[in-house]
Amino acid sequence: MDNQSNVSEPEHQHIDTDHICELVATLLPVAEYIHSPSQSYLQTPEQEQALAELIIALHDLHPADMATLLESLPLAERMLVWKLAIPTEDGEVLLEVSDPVRETLIENMEQQELLAAVDDLDADELAELAPDLPKQVVYAALSSRDEQEQAQIAASMSFEDNQVGALMDFELVSIRADVSCEVVLRYLRRFERLPDHTDKIFVVDDQDVLQGVLPIRSLLVSDPEALVSDVMADDVVTFRPEEDVEEAAAAFERYDLVTAPVVNDDRKLIGRITIDEMVDVIREESESDMLNMAGLREEEDLFAPIIDSVKNRWIWLAVNLCTAFIASRVIGLFEHSIEKIVALATLMPIVAGIGGNSGNQTITMIVRAMTSGQISNNQARRLLHKEQGVSLVNGLIWGSVMGIVSYFLYHSIGIGLVMVAAMTLNLLLAATVGVLIPVLMQKSGRDPALGSSVLITAVTDSGGFFIFLGLATLFLL
Amino acid sequence: MDNQSNVSEPEHQHIDTDHICELVATLLPVAEYIHSPSQSYLQTPEQEQALAELIIALHDLHPADMATLLESLPLAERMLVWKLAIPTEDGEVLLEVSDPVRETLIENMEQQELLAAVDDLDADELAELAPDLPKQVVYAALSSRDEQEQAQIAASMSFEDNQVGALMDFELVSIRADVSCEVVLRYLRRFERLPDHTDKIFVVDDQDVLQGVLPIRSLLVSDPEALVSDVMADDVVTFRPEEDVEEAAAAFERYDLVTAPVVNDDRKLIGRITIDEMVDVIREESESDMLNMAGLREEEDLFAPIIDSVKNRWIWLAVNLCTAFIASRVIGLFEHSIEKIVALATLMPIVAGIGGNSGNQTITMIVRAMTSGQISNNQARRLLHKEQGVSLVNGLIWGSVMGIVSYFLYHSIGIGLVMVAAMTLNLLLAATVGVLIPVLMQKSGRDPALGSSVLITAVTDSGGFFIFLGLATLFLL
Repeated sequence: MDNQSNVSEPEHQHIDTDHICELVATLLPVAEYIHSPSQSYLQTPEQEQALAELIIALHDLHPADMATLLESLPLAERMLVWKLAIPTEDGEVLLEVSDPVRETLIENMEQQELLAAVDDLDADELAELAPDLPKQVVYAALSSRDEQEQAQIAASMSFEDNQVGALMDFELVSIRADVSCEVVLRYLRRFERLPDHTDKIFVVDDQDVLQGVLPIRSLLVSDPEALVSDVMADDVVTFRPEEDVEEAAAAFERYDLVTAPVVNDDRKLIGRITIDEMVDVIREESESDMLNMAGLREEEDLFAPIIDSVKNRWIWLAVNLCTAFIASRVIGLFEHSIEKIVALATLMPIVAGIGGNSGNQTITMIVRAMTSGQISNNQARRLLHKEQGVSLVNGLIWGSVMGIVSYFLYHSIGIGLVMVAAMTLNLLLAATVGVLIPVLMQKSGRDPALGSSVLITAVTDSGGFFIFLGLATLFLL
Repeated sequence: MDNQSNVSEPEHQHIDTDHICELVATLLPVAEYIHSPSQSYLQTPEQEQALAELIIALHDLHPADMATLLESLPLAERMLVWKLAIPTEDGEVLLEVSDPVRETLIENMEQQELLAAVDDLDADELAELAPDLPKQVVYAALSSRDEQEQAQIAASMSFEDNQVGALMDFELVSIRADVSCEVVLRYLRRFERLPDHTDKIFVVDDQDVLQGVLPIRSLLVSDPEALVSDVMADDVVTFRPEEDVEEAAAAFERYDLVTAPVVNDDRKLIGRITIDEMVDVIREESESDMLNMAGLREEEDLFAPIIDSVKNRWIWLAVNLCTAFIASRVIGLFEHSIEKIVALATLMPIVAGIGGNSGNQTITMIVRAMTSGQISNNQARRLLHKEQGVSLVNGLIWGSVMGIVSYFLYHSIGIGLVMVAAMTLNLLLAATVGVLIPVLMQKSGRDPALGSSVLITAVTDSGGFFIFLGLATLFLL
């Protein structure tokens, strides 16, 4: 027997997006004649051939890969691929794609298709999609569920997106503490399948109050005669449904959890959260920090209509314009000096630019440390001093370099010295504000990353111009 | 019985860093009289009291929390806390902290302490620490291991940090395909404990060639008489040791894996990777994107000596200085124009600033999409057109706003019109370069995030000054 034939090739190889795009491009002009994998009215054998190839390529895709593919396609192409997706996996794909892309997909589905797509979903998954679905579909989907599931869906939907309750699922396997491991094994065997990621079984009393957890790893190695109460772990990491998901994700990361119970105020077991949801939270958290720092309001469909992108970005552009205008007015104060020494206009962007760059380094480091929970109030002052120290060193070094260069350009010792002083002072300003902005943002309960890059640049621009032109006016005129 | 007493409080509550810092501050002046939790020579009852409290507070910390605490402390405080940490957990803590902090901790440990700390570690963990340990310690630690473990350590260390081989562990539970589930259960019961995260058992032939995996979830629900070969899954996601860890992490995320086998070219099972390592990879990947965009070379100890921080940041500051110098020389070309119309000096930073902000929005979005694998070559051109469209709209809107403002400030229609044109053109430039920089970086095999923020700002500054002053010189003089 050939040993290798028994195990199929790794599934995690890259999707051949380029090939799929080519096929889609061939078919796009005749997209209106293609209705589903099995229903199409094409003219040429080439088109039929391309369609067949495309259907095969798409059929092999995991729902998560299908989601990535859909995200990366412009709207018309996306809709063609979506028509050819496997209908039974539609629900999974809708769960995987980002909100803006999900909207475009749902808009283009018939009510009947949507109902079929959500039919196989678990209660928590349906709850996740519900806000994006047409009301009639939600109503119809709910009415096909039993009372318990309806209650679960209502519970899920009552929490905010950033609360543990919104991400918990209800696939609970729970047992009593006073039975033997043998009994547990027999009980489990009666399941057709165990929930995804089951790494522990929840131990509850007759009121559903959590008593502990029985890790499967312990169950498998323990004496079948042993009682659950003797084998179970009772120092359990539990979560409340109203807790913040980012804190829950941090706890999963820190304690290497795979699943964890969610309990209410009476410690009654009401759900569980799993590592796959937490991985998504971690990914999204870092990404939203990045987007926020650059002044993007939220995740954006790569191929969103231009008007949507403009809307997503206009706030921070407007803020930037205001701050740039202020910086411009600062320069305006010194127009008289610039008229006398035009070199000032030439050199001033250097002072502002290095301050912005250095301030961005500081603020990025602090935001990152805040995300991993490393900064408490006590540390803020020390960090400030450290960053100011770094700036002082950098300011003296790079300020001197630029001071010397300026001297040679304009043959004026005064300009050189003003350059050294202005660069050093602006770097100190950048360090100070680079620490203060995220610390104050956090203290006031805001996201420290939000627009921080725009804010620090605003300060170092206006500040840089003011310091440089002010010093020049004082000492050179 | 009180139901609630059975389950202890959730462990994932915040560490009380501030309280610990206070205690440390009290003890810092007498740190030299404190050698270990059990050995100290203190003078006052207050000090003894603070020490006792600190030891208790530290004793409760999970190694991961201890690592976070150490990261957040300045050097002297960090060393005091480190002396008081539980010696048997030292190895775990060393694994959890970042590289720069690990160096500071190891520097301050005796050879004997280090040996004790690494004694309990698994082969893969020892391999991870080895590059940071003194050579004698590595040698002594190796010689206490058996031949198999030595081979595993050597194997781990032969891979780069960003390869799967460096992160795999060797805690393999493997079985043959031709036994019954009952036999597997009995076999597992002979283990004292199963490896962390065990969610599947690897099925191999007598040559250790991987045949499939037996998910524990399937094992638990299957008929004890059933053969492993009938229950096992043979469409396994496998990894090669030389594969990139970020791709492996993406696969874990996409397919919701908890563990996965690592096989060599002959499909022989050589190790496994686990979700907890992959979560770290995902976190680090997003963080390094953020740090790279801001021009920080690598993770930095928050309280690194100033000189280390200066070194970490100088390259990008130097790059920034060069680009700022170029921008300054661009302005220098137009000194003659500025002498005539000093308003140009006042308005030019607005043009440059809005270009930088908008370019950063574009580049951040593209880098994020690249990280999640959404951009192929085909898409780059379409994205370019879309971003240019967004810029055109933004340029016309905001350019007009600033054009009108400039008109009212300087009572010159010409200045207003030049402002509109320059802002629109610079936004178009920002969009173009914001797409091209990351695409070209990726094509040339570099990290698209690397310094992208500095580069885009360089282009939009020089470009903005050139466009604005150039247009002004052409049309206003």
